[in-house]
Amino acid sequence: MTHKKQILWLIPTPIGKRKENRVLPEYTLNIVKNLNCFIVEKPQTAISFLKWINHPTPEYKMTLRVLNKKTPDQEIFSFIKLLKEQDVGLMSEAGAPGVADPGSRLINLAHEHGYQVAPLIGPSSILLALMGSGLNGQNFAFHGYLPIQENKRNSAVKALENHSVQTGQTQIFMEAPHRNLSLFDNLVNHLRPGTKLCIACNLTQPDELILTKRVDSWRKEEKPDIQKKPALFLILAS
Amino acid sequence: MTHKKQILWLIPTPIGKRKENRVLPEYTLNIVKNLNCFIVEKPQTAISFLKWINHPTPEYKMTLRVLNKKTPDQEIFSFIKLLKEQDVGLMSEAGAPGVADPGSRLINLAHEHGYQVAPLIGPSSILLALMGSGLNGQNFAFHGYLPIQENKRNSAVKALENHSVQTGQTQIFMEAPHRNLSLFDNLVNHLRPGTKLCIACNLTQPDELILTKRVDSWRKEEKPDIQKKPALFLILAS
Repeated sequence: MTHKKQILWLIPTPIGKRKENRVLPEYTLNIVKNLNCFIVEKPQTAISFLKWINHPTPEYKMTLRVLNKKTPDQEIFSFIKLLKEQDVGLMSEAGAPGVADPGSRLINLAHEHGYQVAPLIGPSSILLALMGSGLNGQNFAFHGYLPIQENKRNSAVKALENHSVQTGQTQIFMEAPHRNLSLFDNLVNHLRPGTKLCIACNLTQPDELILTKRVDSWRKEEKPDIQKKPALFLILAS
Repeated sequence: MTHKKQILWLIPTPIGKRKENRVLPEYTLNIVKNLNCFIVEKPQTAISFLKWINHPTPEYKMTLRVLNKKTPDQEIFSFIKLLKEQDVGLMSEAGAPGVADPGSRLINLAHEHGYQVAPLIGPSSILLALMGSGLNGQNFAFHGYLPIQENKRNSAVKALENHSVQTGQTQIFMEAPHRNLSLFDNLVNHLRPGTKLCIACNLTQPDELILTKRVDSWRKEEKPDIQKKPALFLILAS
């Protein structure tokens, strides 16, 4: 199958506060500045991002549609029609679209309709956390959010640790920021002493924190300052 | 523990041929230009990369040490000593250091010695492939290389597909480029007809190819042009 002409561009956006641009290559910015049609997770964030990069098109001349986890399938179908006319940019709330966000539903459909999909380069908290952790980067898995309920969460944590023991696979997961310390306590109390736990918090920000320690070391130290801040948790057991 | 002053910077490098810079933010380039000590996978590639970004320090004034999969532990310990004197940059052969390369051994040790580790932003073929695939980005695993021997490889493929059926997890893996078509045939012959298979090849290059199709569609079409080209394979079964 030959690709249709228009392209669905996947646009990573900054994670955390935007000041000077430290995270996007010039090429990514230039592609975005040439687009006038965007599918976005939250319009407010998207508009503020487009202003931040000095997008030359005024807001009222842009086409902006919302794709979040509640968007019904038929609406996503209608986004594909936009691709008949022009290139379209897909943006998530922060970080890389299609990863830990609802964007993959549109990307999937673009493939089914024969459109070219082109991922651009920018920040991804999952990738940065994995790089910075020093844990196994040749075998790793991302699981999104763990269950909220305490006993289910404990079981999930033990299952991930056991899987890591068997396979040497780094296990990556996250939590709603206001529950970060509760998850941290949980991990420190229930993981084996020798398991390595990495906390990666406020990535790309001036107060970025990436710490990897064995669980028995974490037990002896002050808790990390991660409450209500975006964080990723990574474990590797042996 | 308070961090020691020096930083281990994790420097992503272009994947594929380098022409104009489309993949690295200005901030990443500026950090690298201020470093004079690098731990690299292959010196030749590293030097050519440093010339490409117009690094201001002449080669003979730089400290360059090699970290590959054969580097013994005690040599990696000696790299940590370099951090006592100055910031150090870690570069892999291509893409993000610490991911699918031997760099994590040094990163791990830097954490143990209390040094700050700072990942920079740039290209990662695994992340770009996952974004572009349209497959599940909320739950995914990277496995590196599958076994070479045919029957072991078939078992590994079936195990990954079964795991994907049970968990909805996208499975990502790769092959030595000269065996890409052999792995492709393997996948198309042994996966279930309804399983989605994404091929992501020559990422960030002008002939980048990202195609996601059901296995029964792949069976009906021409084989993709992936032989001897760097590629990632992604599957999602349901």
